[in-house]
Amino acid sequence: MYSVSVTAPVNIATLKYWGKRDSVLNLPTNSSISVTLSQDDLKTTTTVSCSDSESYSVDQLYLNGKLESLESLRSQKCLGELRKYRSEMEAKDGSLPRISEWPLRIVSVNNFPTAAGLASSAAGYAAMVYGIARLYRLPLDRSELSKIARQGSGSACRSLYGGFVAWEMGSKKDGTDSRAVQIADVGHWPGIRAAILVVSASKKEVPSTGGMQLTVGSSDLFEYRVKNVVPPRYKEMEQSIIKKNFEKFAELTMRDSNSFHAVCLDSYPPIFYMNDTSKRIVKLINELNKSQGRNVAAYTFDAGPNAVIYYEEKDEHLVLGVLNEFFGHLPGWDKKRSINYSLPDRFPIDLFNKDIFSQGVSSVILTGIGEGPKETQEVLKMP
Amino acid sequence: MYSVSVTAPVNIATLKYWGKRDSVLNLPTNSSISVTLSQDDLKTTTTVSCSDSESYSVDQLYLNGKLESLESLRSQKCLGELRKYRSEMEAKDGSLPRISEWPLRIVSVNNFPTAAGLASSAAGYAAMVYGIARLYRLPLDRSELSKIARQGSGSACRSLYGGFVAWEMGSKKDGTDSRAVQIADVGHWPGIRAAILVVSASKKEVPSTGGMQLTVGSSDLFEYRVKNVVPPRYKEMEQSIIKKNFEKFAELTMRDSNSFHAVCLDSYPPIFYMNDTSKRIVKLINELNKSQGRNVAAYTFDAGPNAVIYYEEKDEHLVLGVLNEFFGHLPGWDKKRSINYSLPDRFPIDLFNKDIFSQGVSSVILTGIGEGPKETQEVLKMP
Repeated sequence: MYSVSVTAPVNIATLKYWGKRDSVLNLPTNSSISVTLSQDDLKTTTTVSCSDSESYSVDQLYLNGKLESLESLRSQKCLGELRKYRSEMEAKDGSLPRISEWPLRIVSVNNFPTAAGLASSAAGYAAMVYGIARLYRLPLDRSELSKIARQGSGSACRSLYGGFVAWEMGSKKDGTDSRAVQIADVGHWPGIRAAILVVSASKKEVPSTGGMQLTVGSSDLFEYRVKNVVPPRYKEMEQSIIKKNFEKFAELTMRDSNSFHAVCLDSYPPIFYMNDTSKRIVKLINELNKSQGRNVAAYTFDAGPNAVIYYEEKDEHLVLGVLNEFFGHLPGWDKKRSINYSLPDRFPIDLFNKDIFSQGVSSVILTGIGEGPKETQEVLKMP
Repeated sequence: MYSVSVTAPVNIATLKYWGKRDSVLNLPTNSSISVTLSQDDLKTTTTVSCSDSESYSVDQLYLNGKLESLESLRSQKCLGELRKYRSEMEAKDGSLPRISEWPLRIVSVNNFPTAAGLASSAAGYAAMVYGIARLYRLPLDRSELSKIARQGSGSACRSLYGGFVAWEMGSKKDGTDSRAVQIADVGHWPGIRAAILVVSASKKEVPSTGGMQLTVGSSDLFEYRVKNVVPPRYKEMEQSIIKKNFEKFAELTMRDSNSFHAVCLDSYPPIFYMNDTSKRIVKLINELNKSQGRNVAAYTFDAGPNAVIYYEEKDEHLVLGVLNEFFGHLPGWDKKRSINYSLPDRFPIDLFNKDIFSQGVSSVILTGIGEGPKETQEVLKMP
């Protein structure tokens, strides 16, 4: 019996992935960029093991304590590719144990709510692929592994790296150049912080895959976004990261969130992921930025109503000063309880009815930029 | 003393006007199409008079019982142009009384809430321009008058006609070819009905003029909408009206509403006019259409959360069957109180939590397609 345990992070895109040009290979219609979030606060832990003992009769996945199917084409493609690499190694080197033929057991837990728009599938597939690759001792770098994880869940490919990560869409039909690369590691710009405002922990109304293909097939504005808006924005965002220009990075992040939700709304029938609570959060951030005469914070929304607010550590007193005013009573402030926040100077608090603006958010997660998948000593047992 | 009284209708665009290429002349970035609504339910009544008596010392406007300013550039341009035409007539024909020099008194009332996204300024400027033109006996057709009303409020130009109306954007710099024309009169397709769901009667958060210029200046998708999406849609919508093809007319109307709100959302900072109540109405209409296997109703949203639902009279039992289920307890059903509505066959009522879906709408206005401005015997007195 062989076993390895790993952890993998969540990533939240600042330049959004929305639309597949090939939905079997999970090839996107545009390149995207994300920030990997700290595993101190959000992570998937996965123990993968394989054995030829009787208790390992078939491949099994236990997710958050429940036996889940591995029958989906997506899971099968990940497992199949990893096994193929291993069996090729075994064929070349007769001294290697032939574990590629053994059943796998994957035990995985998230320390955050699943499928609530918090990119749990990204962390989950990244952990599974990274874990099996370590178990099999595959000589593949993270970019190679990202191509396998991509076939499980598109955005999972970006969770193979820490820091700032790009998913290069590639141009080949077989997808071999559609992979994640690191734009900059955590050490390049360690002061990037993220505050997640959890608006709803219920399951998504419109799942991402169905939603994005509805947009691809019906939005009149979508193709223009993909061909004309995203490519120059990608380069600008990459530069803003390299130059640590938060003002620009924030503007591009907010603009791209808006653009993504705009093409969702332009779908037929329209898709709405942001709700009235999301919009109130947009207004809070806009007014904070206006009051300071610069972008101290950037909102971004994925395929759900939750907000992720990026900011720099040096401005934490400003951003958390506002968030604490409205959401300070909610779970998630433990690490900051001792700090006495106050509203930033010039913040136009009179514009906001506090009763209304405090509504709809259920918890807060205060985190920051973080590292990619890594091995861990923690071993998860079958439930 | 000379006096004329007129009434003018509201119009609700099915192909939206959003964006000015010249904000002094109110020249739009795209042509638009609207349905004129029946004055039985929504109208502005305006009495215009002029006199050289002492009580008429300056031009005055009384709107809904309150003295309002006529100082705005927009009002001044309308009054100035009408006076210029009159004074040219007077110069040519010495027998005409020189009333162009006399102060004007304009007394105007709406029978619906002002500035709640119900196009009150369109009806108001149309009534004022049409009324003064009648007072002055100007030999100008409605299309000529539409160019004057356009300078007061862009969409007012479409309220000069009944039925289905296009505002041709024109190409001339001086705006002399930017005017309303009638696509078809009421008699062509009299069975078009409209149900207005009034979501909020408060003033708009983002006024249209500021909102549209923010979109023009900041949305990456806007120019594509204007240049590539609207022109073919305009032709298709015009054809759908001429052919009385409701299926197509409804699809184009919903798509264009989505597209307009998408470019609002794509603005920086984003503009949101639809709220969670608006989105629930979209879902009701989508599910109604799906359940019937055809478009029996089309939603459209202007620069506010109110919904306008267009449908054909022959499908009234289906559309009002659904609306009555959720909004039957609200004001606005008087004319239909005697009818026993029931939910349409196959409508998936289980998808809707009635408590939630009934929220947020304050009243209903059941109306239909109607005629353009006309003279009336009703005389409004100065309050």
